[in-house]
Amino acid sequence: MTNKPFRAVVLLSGGLDSSTVLAIAQQKGFEVFALSFSYGQRHTAELDSAKAVAQQFEVARHVVVDIDLRRFGGSALTDDIEVPKGRDIRQMSGEIPVTYVPARNTIFLSYALAWAEVLAAQHIFIGVNAVDYSGYPDCRPEFIESFERMANLATRAGVEGESPLRIETPLLQLSKAQIILKGIEFGVHYALTNSCYDPLGSGAPCTDCDACLLRAQGFRDAGLCDPLMEKYA
Amino acid sequence: MTNKPFRAVVLLSGGLDSSTVLAIAQQKGFEVFALSFSYGQRHTAELDSAKAVAQQFEVARHVVVDIDLRRFGGSALTDDIEVPKGRDIRQMSGEIPVTYVPARNTIFLSYALAWAEVLAAQHIFIGVNAVDYSGYPDCRPEFIESFERMANLATRAGVEGESPLRIETPLLQLSKAQIILKGIEFGVHYALTNSCYDPLGSGAPCTDCDACLLRAQGFRDAGLCDPLMEKYA
Repeated sequence: MTNKPFRAVVLLSGGLDSSTVLAIAQQKGFEVFALSFSYGQRHTAELDSAKAVAQQFEVARHVVVDIDLRRFGGSALTDDIEVPKGRDIRQMSGEIPVTYVPARNTIFLSYALAWAEVLAAQHIFIGVNAVDYSGYPDCRPEFIESFERMANLATRAGVEGESPLRIETPLLQLSKAQIILKGIEFGVHYALTNSCYDPLGSGAPCTDCDACLLRAQGFRDAGLCDPLMEKYA
Repeated sequence: MTNKPFRAVVLLSGGLDSSTVLAIAQQKGFEVFALSFSYGQRHTAELDSAKAVAQQFEVARHVVVDIDLRRFGGSALTDDIEVPKGRDIRQMSGEIPVTYVPARNTIFLSYALAWAEVLAAQHIFIGVNAVDYSGYPDCRPEFIESFERMANLATRAGVEGESPLRIETPLLQLSKAQIILKGIEFGVHYALTNSCYDPLGSGAPCTDCDACLLRAQGFRDAGLCDPLMEKYA
């Protein structure tokens, strides 16, 4: 490791995927600046998880930015639309679900870009995944590549010939089970993470929304128990 | 005009350029949804102007989104860095000025994208300008083109084969004088607009920052007096 490690901005929702991404970035030797958003989610369980994970990994800094996507409406995650339950995992990639928040990843990555430029960080990590794709257009690899190209034109990097900015997607080609196994290898405490779209008052996962179903299948495929379920058992 | 006009999201800072863009969008027959940001500017004169212009043109809706770019720092417009004064206009495009706010237009356009998707608007208007280019990387045409490509991958449009989203830049190839003449033709009251980076306590422009100097030169080139200066004379 050099005297001054490279800096990376890591988008951290507090779910399984982004927590694993944070562990991977730190394992690669980056100085991690974690970025979370309070965006009018229906619950704060996810943000509590983000804080716990950032603390566990002793990140350089964790910023929670308050953004009010409810001003525009249009999603079950921020509006009073019902979160769908009990869907068949095999059908999840067929259509855009009502839990889709318009342009959410674009907005998240744009804030990450602003912070990266101020920090002179050349790496932004995001936990998108092409295998267990849940139907969100802004999780596709072609979106990420396009954002990276745009980002390099949007900032000093594109003008002053500095080193280009990279959007890092270490989970892109991994199955949920592979993500979990990698996270465990790198010390993620999955009992701290929370992926549920619609948790109970206690913060316990509903076990029945798309995110819970994908997570449960991932632990099954990995041949493991989900420590989060044990915590609330 | 059809029974149901097409909708457009217009980024409205309250300055000369974006106010002219709003007038152009309305002249083209769009139903205008104006979007402004409170982003820790050093002053509120710009936002007051945005509200006045939105009101003058009786837009369908005007939303001011509160975003806190000070969390990241890095610009004279949001930090305690001094706004440069009395620069030579011919040198303004040579370097990125300290008034540059990292990734600001990327963040603004991302919010516009979110709102456009909710409204089913296929047009986002922004007042960037390639002629009186003031050195911001995120005002260049290649940035806008790249954002448009990314936007169409980020949203439903890219997945469901819907009509693509367009980023409209009607000022791109106009000089400041041409912008002013077009605005006057379409009814912009330039006394309502305010472009200054560092206005006095009264809201009066400082007359000496890059934005004030470019504006003054534009009115001179158009052979007109700036009604804003008359207002504060």
